Amino acid sequence: MDSAVLLDLLGNENRRRILRLLARRPCYVTEISEYLGVSPKAVIDHLRKLDDAGLVESRVDDQRRKYFSIARNLRLEVNVSPYEFGTKSAYPASRSLDMNRCRYLSLHVEPDGSDEADGSAGDGGDATETDGETKQRHGPRAEVNPDRSSEPDDSLAALTAELERLETLENELSMAQRWVQGRLTDVMDSLSGAFPDGDGRLYAELLAAVANGARTTTAVARRVDASPAVTADALARLEREGLLEQTGEEWRLTASE
Amino acid sequence: MDSAVLLDLLGNENRRRILRLLARRPCYVTEISEYLGVSPKAVIDHLRKLDDAGLVESRVDDQRRKYFSIARNLRLEVNVSPYEFGTKSAYPASRSLDMNRCRYLSLHVEPDGSDEADGSAGDGGDATETDGETKQRHGPRAEVNPDRSSEPDDSLAALTAELERLETLENELSMAQRWVQGRLTDVMDSLSGAFPDGDGRLYAELLAAVANGARTTTAVARRVDASPAVTADALARLEREGLLEQTGEEWRLTASE
Repeated sequence: MDSAVLLDLLGNENRRRILRLLARRPCYVTEISEYLGVSPKAVIDHLRKLDDAGLVESRVDDQRRKYFSIARNLRLEVNVSPYEFGTKSAYPASRSLDMNRCRYLSLHVEPDGSDEADGSAGDGGDATETDGETKQRHGPRAEVNPDRSSEPDDSLAALTAELERLETLENELSMAQRWVQGRLTDVMDSLSGAFPDGDGRLYAELLAAVANGARTTTAVARRVDASPAVTADALARLEREGLLEQTGEEWRLTASE
Repeated sequence: MDSAVLLDLLGNENRRRILRLLARRPCYVTEISEYLGVSPKAVIDHLRKLDDAGLVESRVDDQRRKYFSIARNLRLEVNVSPYEFGTKSAYPASRSLDMNRCRYLSLHVEPDGSDEADGSAGDGGDATETDGETKQRHGPRAEVNPDRSSEPDDSLAALTAELERLETLENELSMAQRWVQGRLTDVMDSLSGAFPDGDGRLYAELLAAVANGARTTTAVARRVDASPAVTADALARLEREGLLEQTGEEWRLTASE
């Protein structure tokens, strides 16, 4: 989903209240209307917008009354900094997380008593980005045993324990991301200041664009919103400084590991 | 900052465009007005709202003309799932990240050639939550050497390398968070289904509330938006099932590590 569409939807207090309510339980329009103190017509209008965006969905009960619930998992992240206004939205990618693709991150969420061999339950077929060394880190192994029939109590306890691990991990990831954002700002400050002629900020943003995956001069120019000519000149200077290398049309950081 | 205030601000396309522009460079009102194709009066109105919220700030140049820039780092996260509509906003906490407080997460961002002893540059004074075992994980050590005067080229290269590590790490953290959100939904589904009498969802949400730090019956009731009486009954059942324990007024998960 487009982050802009999502922000437009979430920019309305009543729509946020509807989502908060539906996250607790599926509801009929009349229930939402009473809870919010808003006319059924207005509620229907909000629900239609949320439905169009795929955020909520409706079903029909035994009495053929329509009720609404949240349709799917969705995550939105907004970063604001002197160097960035970035929005990112994503559906949780898959049931598996391939930690082999993570170079700088390890998670430790093995369930008690798990003896599975290698936890990185990757979706396979996507090993091209691994670099073939030191990739034996343990992936997250917070697997729930699907066969809980024999020991229901134990399994409930295991689920609750996993719930707590995941909630804790979520808070830790969030804290780590705030730290990364602060560090990124520091590094951009340092880079900007390292070019004495006043264009430091442009150079820092060019380097960040390349670091973040922009490869061609055109892609970099679009990312930093500078003209292709200015961008080409500045990239050439960064190449002379030994910070960038060009292979064919593609730029990469010389320092890239 | 209140997430609701932030979402109201970001729910406007022109304010998002202003932030995107200011993230590239500080601007005068006239520049913003021309870039957006919006009257200076409307721009001033948007800037005032952003200023009130502390997102942008203004300075005066040599000719006493006011120009605007983004005031500070800020991060907003929104989770939407069948069990949650959660918003979280935070300023990057500090320049340091105390990995000793992370139980399930490790970051690997040591700079090339760094020989510092222990990277967890915690702000100290907050060691009460560590549990005194296996806390020797390496914290992030992406330190920038502040004394770059002697070898300017090397240090620029080091800064660029760090920039790329941080950008990569940010993407990895984001991927991990999406995975955690998906797993949380799975666990909540399993927990809800594990109580046969139709109240599974309430029990699952009570457990999640306790796992997420709600301690007293009142706090849990508020979190799940149920009456204190219903909440007290349900918590008592979860205690009988051996999933919760109460010490004084405080609930905790029996499975809590």
